[in-house]
Amino acid sequence: MAPRDLSVALLGCGTVGSEVVRLLAERRDDFAARCGANLNLVGIAVRDLSAERPAHVPTELLTTDAEALVRRADLVIELIGGIEPARSLILAALASGASVVTGNKALLAAHGPELHEATAEADVDLYYEAAVAGAIPIVYTLRESLAGDHVETVMGIVNGTTNYILDNMTQAGVGYEEALAAAQELGYAEADPTADVEGHDAAAKLAIMAALAFHSRVALDDVPVQGISHITAEDIAEARESGHTIKLLATARRLGTEGISLRVAPTLVADSHPLASVGGAYNAVVTESEAAGRLMFYGQGAGGAPTASAVLSDVVAAAAHRVVGGLAPRELRYASLPVLGTDRERGVFSVALHASDESGVLSAVAGAFAEHGVSIRSVHQDDSTGEGSARVRIVVHETTRAALDDVVAALADHPKVKSVPRVMPVEG
Amino acid sequence: MAPRDLSVALLGCGTVGSEVVRLLAERRDDFAARCGANLNLVGIAVRDLSAERPAHVPTELLTTDAEALVRRADLVIELIGGIEPARSLILAALASGASVVTGNKALLAAHGPELHEATAEADVDLYYEAAVAGAIPIVYTLRESLAGDHVETVMGIVNGTTNYILDNMTQAGVGYEEALAAAQELGYAEADPTADVEGHDAAAKLAIMAALAFHSRVALDDVPVQGISHITAEDIAEARESGHTIKLLATARRLGTEGISLRVAPTLVADSHPLASVGGAYNAVVTESEAAGRLMFYGQGAGGAPTASAVLSDVVAAAAHRVVGGLAPRELRYASLPVLGTDRERGVFSVALHASDESGVLSAVAGAFAEHGVSIRSVHQDDSTGEGSARVRIVVHETTRAALDDVVAALADHPKVKSVPRVMPVEG
Repeated sequence: MAPRDLSVALLGCGTVGSEVVRLLAERRDDFAARCGANLNLVGIAVRDLSAERPAHVPTELLTTDAEALVRRADLVIELIGGIEPARSLILAALASGASVVTGNKALLAAHGPELHEATAEADVDLYYEAAVAGAIPIVYTLRESLAGDHVETVMGIVNGTTNYILDNMTQAGVGYEEALAAAQELGYAEADPTADVEGHDAAAKLAIMAALAFHSRVALDDVPVQGISHITAEDIAEARESGHTIKLLATARRLGTEGISLRVAPTLVADSHPLASVGGAYNAVVTESEAAGRLMFYGQGAGGAPTASAVLSDVVAAAAHRVVGGLAPRELRYASLPVLGTDRERGVFSVALHASDESGVLSAVAGAFAEHGVSIRSVHQDDSTGEGSARVRIVVHETTRAALDDVVAALADHPKVKSVPRVMPVEG
Repeated sequence: MAPRDLSVALLGCGTVGSEVVRLLAERRDDFAARCGANLNLVGIAVRDLSAERPAHVPTELLTTDAEALVRRADLVIELIGGIEPARSLILAALASGASVVTGNKALLAAHGPELHEATAEADVDLYYEAAVAGAIPIVYTLRESLAGDHVETVMGIVNGTTNYILDNMTQAGVGYEEALAAAQELGYAEADPTADVEGHDAAAKLAIMAALAFHSRVALDDVPVQGISHITAEDIAEARESGHTIKLLATARRLGTEGISLRVAPTLVADSHPLASVGGAYNAVVTESEAAGRLMFYGQGAGGAPTASAVLSDVVAAAAHRVVGGLAPRELRYASLPVLGTDRERGVFSVALHASDESGVLSAVAGAFAEHGVSIRSVHQDDSTGEGSARVRIVVHETTRAALDDVVAALADHPKVKSVPRVMPVEG
């Protein structure tokens, strides 16, 4: 059977986009064999026609009229990023009957329901593997591979920039500012690193993963976020001492039928946990589900080529549906689990504080935990900090965040406690 | 839209099968929401009606007439294992228009082309995620997720029994026989462990993965296999000393456009390699592809629940195709790469031997490598073995197996070499 012809429109031609152009040309025959269609690139929408681009990008395909372009394509690849004009262009593409492949996590996290509804209405496909963790097929895994299972936890390192910074602080013992500067120099961090270091990028990815894992709608605002810019060399050193590594973890848990608990936060990960050894700018996601148990996925979470690989696997899937019929799984929200407030969060936590170095202080601190029914797993006291001050680190048994917050409030008011207690979740 | 009704037949009701029965009942509404169909179990084919089974298996569905059963099902789940009657029943199911989900690696490795052709002819689906590495979605990853990429290497620990044995030898310092006995006691190894410990199970899985990764036909007989029963505590100790862990690795590499190089063999894995830390009965697979780079997948490779999770994800996918149309990707063999002979294999190898403990022996040994153009990366000589014998371990730079075999033949004949040189591939 001769391959059909499908017209492909590309929106955006940055690092990922120009890799997509290269691969579409180089692997044309491969793709035809895989999806039964010639993928014909019919246009590349860009903002500035005269910007510098790699030589393999055909200038005759460039256009600034993205709106007209999406209406003459069977498949639209959106790699502009941000909310507008990406949102309007995707909606226009869907409305005109095109299937859409996007890597736009911010848009999906903010406007997922609208996009999913437009996709269902148009009876086409919306694919977004590249939106989460680059080439790691975690969207597929949650959307299809674990369809025969009940997911309980999705937890991961989904931001390479912060992982690079934390890993550098851990390996080289440098402070946050120095590690950030190094990441910027290497191109791992942007000039304005806010979206990465404050956890917003990870939160968008977590919202997408949680919606898929728990068949419920999860809005970006539902995700409580803490970034890494307050992490000090002392925090890292203390973590090392206690056999932990600090990672910016994005975590989603199903609490039975009650709801979903979410967080993005610097987390003490036990060195024996598989996520502890994920170094550099790598990403990794762990799923825990009732039947499959624990699965881990590891790979490059960003970069032109890995992201292009994810985009093109989606393009091939969407193209195959054009040829043989079928549709990707639709948005599922039948479980309709609510996102629970942070007070409902359950887990193991570490509490670190400075206290007066005098007798009775440990008993006073311990008393605050006992009073609120929070059980202590381990205590570490270090009197060597000088200035009549002792550093106390306490790890508690699993508890609710609400109970822990009460303890922390009580400790903060205690006359012998000299610093605001620092709380960090613990995994593994 | 009210869900359709689909009839599901189950062949075999062992550990995995009875888990499938449980999950089909417990998650009926879940599955209906996911695939748009009620999955109605209409029969369970077994050999012996009176065998003991878990209470949740409905006895009224049991039948010994598998042939009649497959003809009245929309979806057939084959969990009998082995070649016959599994092969004939799957062919009968496909011929009568049912889609088939199987976990039968031996059958796929031996009769894959026949099954794929019958599937294409009947225009239905054949899914087999459970055939390789349990709940790890590696079949999907190779079949669909990396469809936008060029796979270069697939390498993994795909047999839990041997990984458990080798890990136990490494951790506890026990010998092979003792570790095997422990694995048998815990149910990780069968009474007759041949298929696992001689590498045949891993070879079947490798043949399936290589065919998917390289879009070529790979027969089970194409895979050169070496098991672990000859591995000694001394081998393990030497590996530890040199910063390696011995793992039974299944490896498939594409050598440009020349062909595919395959092997299942105990391999020295550098401790820094992500596969080195995969312990116990866990499985892990690493893929290296041109655009996505290195990806790793980790999880439980066997067991009732994890395997049932993989089976049911396939069932949901096949059921969704019945409802909304579409088909799983067909067997692709457009690349038609030949499987290369072992002499063409390229890689880094370790050669260990006993030699006379006398001056000049090292230069003689090194000379044999130089003579055949094989370049030495490192040499370790240990004179403490007593009896006038020195243990020499040499790691070479990347070379062909053919050149190495010439060196080994020369060494074996050398008067100062007192043992047949032991060759092991090195990764990482």
